[in-house]
Amino acid sequence: MVKKPAPDAARRSERSRRAIYDAALALVAETGYPRTTIEAIAARAGVGKQTIYRWWPSKADVLLEAFLDLAEQAARDAGQVPYEIPDTGDLAADLKAVLRLTVDQMSDPRFTAPARALAAEGLVNEQLGRQLVAELLEPQLQLYVHRLRAAQDAGAVRPDADPRIALELFVSPIAQRWLQYTGPLTYEYTDTLVDYALHGLAPR
Amino acid sequence: MVKKPAPDAARRSERSRRAIYDAALALVAETGYPRTTIEAIAARAGVGKQTIYRWWPSKADVLLEAFLDLAEQAARDAGQVPYEIPDTGDLAADLKAVLRLTVDQMSDPRFTAPARALAAEGLVNEQLGRQLVAELLEPQLQLYVHRLRAAQDAGAVRPDADPRIALELFVSPIAQRWLQYTGPLTYEYTDTLVDYALHGLAPR
Repeated sequence: MVKKPAPDAARRSERSRRAIYDAALALVAETGYPRTTIEAIAARAGVGKQTIYRWWPSKADVLLEAFLDLAEQAARDAGQVPYEIPDTGDLAADLKAVLRLTVDQMSDPRFTAPARALAAEGLVNEQLGRQLVAELLEPQLQLYVHRLRAAQDAGAVRPDADPRIALELFVSPIAQRWLQYTGPLTYEYTDTLVDYALHGLAPR
Repeated sequence: MVKKPAPDAARRSERSRRAIYDAALALVAETGYPRTTIEAIAARAGVGKQTIYRWWPSKADVLLEAFLDLAEQAARDAGQVPYEIPDTGDLAADLKAVLRLTVDQMSDPRFTAPARALAAEGLVNEQLGRQLVAELLEPQLQLYVHRLRAAQDAGAVRPDADPRIALELFVSPIAQRWLQYTGPLTYEYTDTLVDYALHGLAPR
């Protein structure tokens, strides 16, 4: 989505790009998606609005890219690049570890304020909602698909389970508690979800 | 929340109340929560705004009550009053049946458009979000708690499982697919969730 700037302008461009990301994320968190205009982002970033239009076709694209960049930074800070779910051979332990990191991220206001504002708009703006899923959420979910497939190969997950549905048993409850304030997000809670999902609610 | 009108004014009041509910739900679906003002609801319902202020302290209260009324009507239409999750002794069948009805309701635009608008505002307005959960969502979730407790008494669910967390294994994935367009909502999908949640992902 980003057109690469010419090499000699790269350093200055990188500074502008970061200022634009920061402005876009701050604005959407403070004023919501509808009021986050290209004009407002440009003014806050201290760049001309043509600079923004040169790189991105719409404010949705700026915001999505700013958010992707933020998520990558957070992953780098947590030492998780290249990002994948660890495979120690113990599926429960690996899932519990990654879900605890997710809980940490969800309590970080740098991440959670713009994420809520984007998600809120995605609820009532189907086009943006589907773009958020395709570009931000689904790539994350595919990491779980990958890990669950490895677990199937290792005999730790039933071979007939669909990994794309299976992951929702522990990912979606966390998403709902985070988005809708339906309950506290603690490590104990996410550990419990993993245990229930792997072993089932019915007695064995 | 509603002050009962004097008996002689009851019929006229009931008509006004319904007009106000309809106006509030239509407005929030069309224009979103921030633009749904008491003034706009009154104008659309053809009543004075004092009529609304006499019965409800805020627009959030009008909307929550209108939405509760809509959900009750939908339950009545589906023959589900008094509303509870059936207990035929077959937990999987009972959960599958009620989740299929949920899927039907989520594809009904009368329900889904105002519900999305309210949920979107709840994401960025924590006070409203918590009110939505307390007054609309949690009472629904308690029906599952009740049914899962009966299943525990019957030996169909592990005695040590927390029903309030257990229900999230199948309720939250549906909520997320509905709210965030993360995947299709079909009967096959909801049936699969129930099977995975009850029997677990690990081989038995």
